[in-house]
Amino acid sequence: MATPNLLPKAKARVVDIHTHMYPPEYIKVLESRNTIPLVRKFTGAADPRLVLLEAEVPLLESHQQDTSILPGRTLTRHFSSLEQKIHFMDTHQIDISVISLANPWLDFLPSIEAFPSAQSINASFSSMCAVHPGRLYFFAALPLTAPTSLLLDSISALSSLPYCRGVILGTSGLGFGLDDPALLAIFLALADANLPIFLHPHYGLPNSVFGPRSASGEYGHVLPLALGFPMETTIAVARMFLAGVFDKVPNLRMILAHSGGTLPFLAGRIESCIMHDGHLVKRMKDRRTIWEVLRSQVYLDAVVYGEVGLKAAVEASGVDRLMFGTDHPFFPPVRGEEGEEDGEWESVGLNVKAAVKAMGEGEEYDGVMGLNAIRVLRLEGE
Amino acid sequence: MATPNLLPKAKARVVDIHTHMYPPEYIKVLESRNTIPLVRKFTGAADPRLVLLEAEVPLLESHQQDTSILPGRTLTRHFSSLEQKIHFMDTHQIDISVISLANPWLDFLPSIEAFPSAQSINASFSSMCAVHPGRLYFFAALPLTAPTSLLLDSISALSSLPYCRGVILGTSGLGFGLDDPALLAIFLALADANLPIFLHPHYGLPNSVFGPRSASGEYGHVLPLALGFPMETTIAVARMFLAGVFDKVPNLRMILAHSGGTLPFLAGRIESCIMHDGHLVKRMKDRRTIWEVLRSQVYLDAVVYGEVGLKAAVEASGVDRLMFGTDHPFFPPVRGEEGEEDGEWESVGLNVKAAVKAMGEGEEYDGVMGLNAIRVLRLEGE
Repeated sequence: MATPNLLPKAKARVVDIHTHMYPPEYIKVLESRNTIPLVRKFTGAADPRLVLLEAEVPLLESHQQDTSILPGRTLTRHFSSLEQKIHFMDTHQIDISVISLANPWLDFLPSIEAFPSAQSINASFSSMCAVHPGRLYFFAALPLTAPTSLLLDSISALSSLPYCRGVILGTSGLGFGLDDPALLAIFLALADANLPIFLHPHYGLPNSVFGPRSASGEYGHVLPLALGFPMETTIAVARMFLAGVFDKVPNLRMILAHSGGTLPFLAGRIESCIMHDGHLVKRMKDRRTIWEVLRSQVYLDAVVYGEVGLKAAVEASGVDRLMFGTDHPFFPPVRGEEGEEDGEWESVGLNVKAAVKAMGEGEEYDGVMGLNAIRVLRLEGE
Repeated sequence: MATPNLLPKAKARVVDIHTHMYPPEYIKVLESRNTIPLVRKFTGAADPRLVLLEAEVPLLESHQQDTSILPGRTLTRHFSSLEQKIHFMDTHQIDISVISLANPWLDFLPSIEAFPSAQSINASFSSMCAVHPGRLYFFAALPLTAPTSLLLDSISALSSLPYCRGVILGTSGLGFGLDDPALLAIFLALADANLPIFLHPHYGLPNSVFGPRSASGEYGHVLPLALGFPMETTIAVARMFLAGVFDKVPNLRMILAHSGGTLPFLAGRIESCIMHDGHLVKRMKDRRTIWEVLRSQVYLDAVVYGEVGLKAAVEASGVDRLMFGTDHPFFPPVRGEEGEEDGEWESVGLNVKAAVKAMGEGEEYDGVMGLNAIRVLRLEGE
């Protein structure tokens, strides 16, 4: 392998809080579909492709014309094999992983199917964690479209599962976003159960904003993934903030994917826009500021691929609230060497290097790389 | 006035590079319109309202039902009065302002009207600057929808105007964005004429992404202005970058509004997404990275309303590439005291305080507050 050893020798345990798995039963559901999200085999490609994003639809529809660019991403064994996850952890000296389903979660299923599907997925995750006690925990799937009474029971049940440490949510809520007042009961129950929400994007932004060259595939997935995803997260949290959710549910804790999307950078502009709106100044008089929310109810992963972003995340939320992640199995190496996906991943290295550059290799580094997650998510190990 | 003196005593000259003016002939055009952008008088409101954004249309259409929340913003004399601009500068100890038209620029006009309209606006700006030589410069309007030959002549003419120091552009280009290959000739001409582009958002993001409570006016303009605007700028620059514009026009210089939108924070994720796309890795083999572009072709204003964002902007582009701005006449104080718009503005204070916190009050502060702009934009004074 050409890649150097990416992780500085860890003095403390390393924890990956942003690492996805698609249990086999979930992949089967995706294989059965004709519209996105779906899994499909294409002529000339060894592995099936996982097609998730609206931005990938133009390529999906025109794939016959140019087989050199296939829609979506290769669905390797990294997506569903527990053995592969453990291999990935060992390769990168990751001691503990908090696994979660990846997007699209269960938004695409009729609500009557979503709940039993989530139960099956959470049972699979529980079993996986039990195979490697102390090395694996999980964020549970929670399909918000299910009836509230079922969800409240489910939250209570999740909180007593030995390896469950929170829930992963997308931004759609009941279809009207997470600022929908109908979701307050769920947020209160999650807060009471001490289950943080890992908020993760999926829908990005409408294709139209990225322009015709993006739609033709010329820019790959860069714009929807690098810009659309972080903005989706930012909008979702800002809407919750403006709706007063953080004030109404003071014990709600949220872990934001990708270092908060763009929230650390834009928090000042959000505050200024509120301060300069006469009606909001009156309506939100006793609110906490977005800065206060960032430092008391929000945690950020450290998946931002650069020192500049990571430092801003640290400054916004505090170095004790940042937690390392890999986004595995997404962003595998692409140099095309045989077996390179079994070696070290450059995407992991980028985040590790950013952490080293931003905070050296002392206590703060150890905190971000693992000790913060162990404390925040109660990962006491075996 | 309750506001304390906001500006630390300047050791060097203070320059405002982000400060807008609507010449009277431009306001007349807006008054004549029935669809956005427009200026309209509403019953019960002393001043007319300026309605610019798609996000304001629902309120515009329903304003009869609730006159307590009017669409858009009050069109005060701050928007068009030269005297008021100078008063604002004196109040905030600003020595030099580089004025520019504000959004929506001339995108809304038929192309046959846009070019003469720009000429008239640029002539007005030239005259204003001549009234206060050494205190005022301007970024010219350049309607990209006009025929290329006219634009090339116009660029040549602008470069010989004594007070013109660049052009202000929106993100729409010829309707297909600034990554449209048809615009390369314009970018080359601007680079050759040593006229930087001040890139400024207007369209934001589609209303749909902000959800029903934003559409009902409950969140004011916070989401489109605080999140939509910065993302629009980021998308526009990222598209130019992916299209290779910065490599193809190596002397192109761009000043990005609002500290680059979100570009400093997301640059790492953009780079990572490119590195992990096999096709792009091949196609963009000899490109400069987004980090290199940020440090060689991009300048950022310091209009980000917080220390966290400002530090990230400094780290991304370098402290010698950041330039103070106010965004006047937008974001006036809202406490409702009589005459408060003639006093100090808190929106200005937020950006000054962020600069003091981020870099103290030494040489770097002096650079950001004015000396950088004097050097970069050749504001040699009288």
